[in-house]
Amino acid sequence: MAAHFGQLDPTQRVLMGPGPSDVSLRVLRALAAPTIGHLDPEYLQIMDETRQMLRQVFQTNNEMTMAVSGTGSAGMEACVCNLIEPGDEMIVCVNGVFGGRMKDVAERYGAVVHAIETNWGNVIDPQQIADQLVKFPRTKVVGIVHAETSTGAHQPLDEIAKLVHASGGYLLVDAVTSLGGIDVPIDGLGIDACYSGTQKCLSCPPGLAPVTFSARAVDAIMARKSKVTSWYLDVTMLKNYWGSDRVYHHTAPINMTYALREALQMILEEGLPQRIARHELNHRMLRAGLEALGLNYIPDHSLTTLNAVHVPAGVDDAVVRKRLLNEYNIEIGAGLGPFKGKAWRIGLMGSSSTLQNVTLILSALESILSDLGYSLTPGATLSAARNAVGLSAYAQTV
Amino acid sequence: MAAHFGQLDPTQRVLMGPGPSDVSLRVLRALAAPTIGHLDPEYLQIMDETRQMLRQVFQTNNEMTMAVSGTGSAGMEACVCNLIEPGDEMIVCVNGVFGGRMKDVAERYGAVVHAIETNWGNVIDPQQIADQLVKFPRTKVVGIVHAETSTGAHQPLDEIAKLVHASGGYLLVDAVTSLGGIDVPIDGLGIDACYSGTQKCLSCPPGLAPVTFSARAVDAIMARKSKVTSWYLDVTMLKNYWGSDRVYHHTAPINMTYALREALQMILEEGLPQRIARHELNHRMLRAGLEALGLNYIPDHSLTTLNAVHVPAGVDDAVVRKRLLNEYNIEIGAGLGPFKGKAWRIGLMGSSSTLQNVTLILSALESILSDLGYSLTPGATLSAARNAVGLSAYAQTV
Repeated sequence: MAAHFGQLDPTQRVLMGPGPSDVSLRVLRALAAPTIGHLDPEYLQIMDETRQMLRQVFQTNNEMTMAVSGTGSAGMEACVCNLIEPGDEMIVCVNGVFGGRMKDVAERYGAVVHAIETNWGNVIDPQQIADQLVKFPRTKVVGIVHAETSTGAHQPLDEIAKLVHASGGYLLVDAVTSLGGIDVPIDGLGIDACYSGTQKCLSCPPGLAPVTFSARAVDAIMARKSKVTSWYLDVTMLKNYWGSDRVYHHTAPINMTYALREALQMILEEGLPQRIARHELNHRMLRAGLEALGLNYIPDHSLTTLNAVHVPAGVDDAVVRKRLLNEYNIEIGAGLGPFKGKAWRIGLMGSSSTLQNVTLILSALESILSDLGYSLTPGATLSAARNAVGLSAYAQTV
Repeated sequence: MAAHFGQLDPTQRVLMGPGPSDVSLRVLRALAAPTIGHLDPEYLQIMDETRQMLRQVFQTNNEMTMAVSGTGSAGMEACVCNLIEPGDEMIVCVNGVFGGRMKDVAERYGAVVHAIETNWGNVIDPQQIADQLVKFPRTKVVGIVHAETSTGAHQPLDEIAKLVHASGGYLLVDAVTSLGGIDVPIDGLGIDACYSGTQKCLSCPPGLAPVTFSARAVDAIMARKSKVTSWYLDVTMLKNYWGSDRVYHHTAPINMTYALREALQMILEEGLPQRIARHELNHRMLRAGLEALGLNYIPDHSLTTLNAVHVPAGVDDAVVRKRLLNEYNIEIGAGLGPFKGKAWRIGLMGSSSTLQNVTLILSALESILSDLGYSLTPGATLSAARNAVGLSAYAQTV
């Protein structure tokens, strides 16, 4: 009956796309620890430790910090559907796939959305938010993407956070591609709701969505007039499951929690500032190398965790990605939306952000582009990359 | 910073509660295979194979068969929120926690629910459905729990399926605690939507929810007047991700898919009929032993996968469960709702349904109850259990 299904044996890839990133053997081993019950005292302790470590990585004291039992998009939906009641007004900033998705989710849950749009690759100007807040003074929530995975744009948040708080609104931030690789100071900025995914800079398999809500946001959720439409994502119940009451809600993804705990422990052992510095250093090195290859970055403000570049004129996007995958086992990402066929997205997230991987992708791209007829000086790419940071600086930081 | 968090090292338990069940090392090894990208051709093939095997276990040809990226309750929510539009009428049968949950979920998504209630532990009488369908002829969906995890009741579905189809309605079935251990013939009964969890009779860690929708149900979903409120669970988009179009929706839980694929492969290697027979045999043996201990079953129609018995008068429920866990590493379940402190729920699901485990739990319970002052004839429990099935019959079946 099952004879025609072979043995599961996925190839070991080098994951340099927009996520998942490389998962260390240490995290995979934790993932495969014996499954225990979701109400086992040992599991409850693992949940507690996971929350404590998540708070450190989110840089927050928020009690309501936990992992939603779904992938990053479930985290987005959890933040939106708990804060929004039908008829609430929400400003959503759209400059890529994930801002667009947040708008869609908010509308499904009954929000009146006042979108702010800008070109893909650009970031949102605080003045746009200020203007929109004046125009729509009843705005309850402002949603914005910190790290737009579809374009590589890194959204500055300081001024925007001040504007939103001055208006009395709640600031909701997508940190899927930043948490654990770029500074996301929840309490420092006063972010009210934030979600991420495990498979980006945390370097854990996909399947959980870390979220955090400020006390002010939790108060607003507890004061809702209507039940949260999604039972599965309802924070009014989830807080009693993750909290000291331990009221059974749903069966948590036990083994995924093991993996997340281990991944968080690795981050705290490395040190969050050191980890952020590592992402910056490898990004600078990669950027210098890619630019030496003649590739141009799409966003003005590039993430250090995801590098989106234009595919050079005359080069077939898919051919290069296919060769990277088939010849080098390297995955990079394709463009989405207006950048379909026109962009490459090269991730340097978590365990994937290494000198080894920067060296490998630059060398592989140089070989493939040379083979496709591009005139490149052999070795110039790596020299440029090295010169941009200096290997002694590298040795000091990592 | 992280110094105070120890090494992850969960104890190897014997999982005989209401789920999760024991996960074999083979499935854990699959879980820990290298993470690859969610759009990697190798992963797309793993998704395809997983769907094909899920169809065999669901006994269906339904194209729209897949795993929702969440636990069983997300599967419930996916079935309800796709079939229900605000104002639709739905009959929900409530005879335990999970029927009650389905009612709550349906109301959140705007259904006008006509509940049918019966005592916890009882099953729903087809006549109740027939009456309710006459009373509410505009009913669109009838939701019912096949295997009520909170009471151990096994709901017969044949007559009910006929009644629902005669009315033109859609039949939605919770098979969380039956799929892979009890016959769930989706096409044979014409079930229109069904969900399960991975951590019960499939013996995979929790984190995914297998679901299947009939072509008729998919047509109804595609003809909705309103968008599905939940973006994450929207079948109109999920079908393009799991289907041949492969339109990116969300990042699937890659490693959990590995584990599910492996668990399904083990089921098909064992043979579904053989596996169902194994669950029956171990249940008969356990039942005879528990009754020899003086324990009485709660439901008239007991599941073979979950055995709910009354806690004997004068025995402290929690003391016994704690001793089982601390002295024997055995987890069994407590009662819920009206059975809180008054019931034990002993699971024999998937990899946990073995002669070894039946022998162990009966012997451990006999020891603990004797120690608590119960007058029991030493060895009588196991003799009764063996006599109920005959070890030669056992050897022939398993």
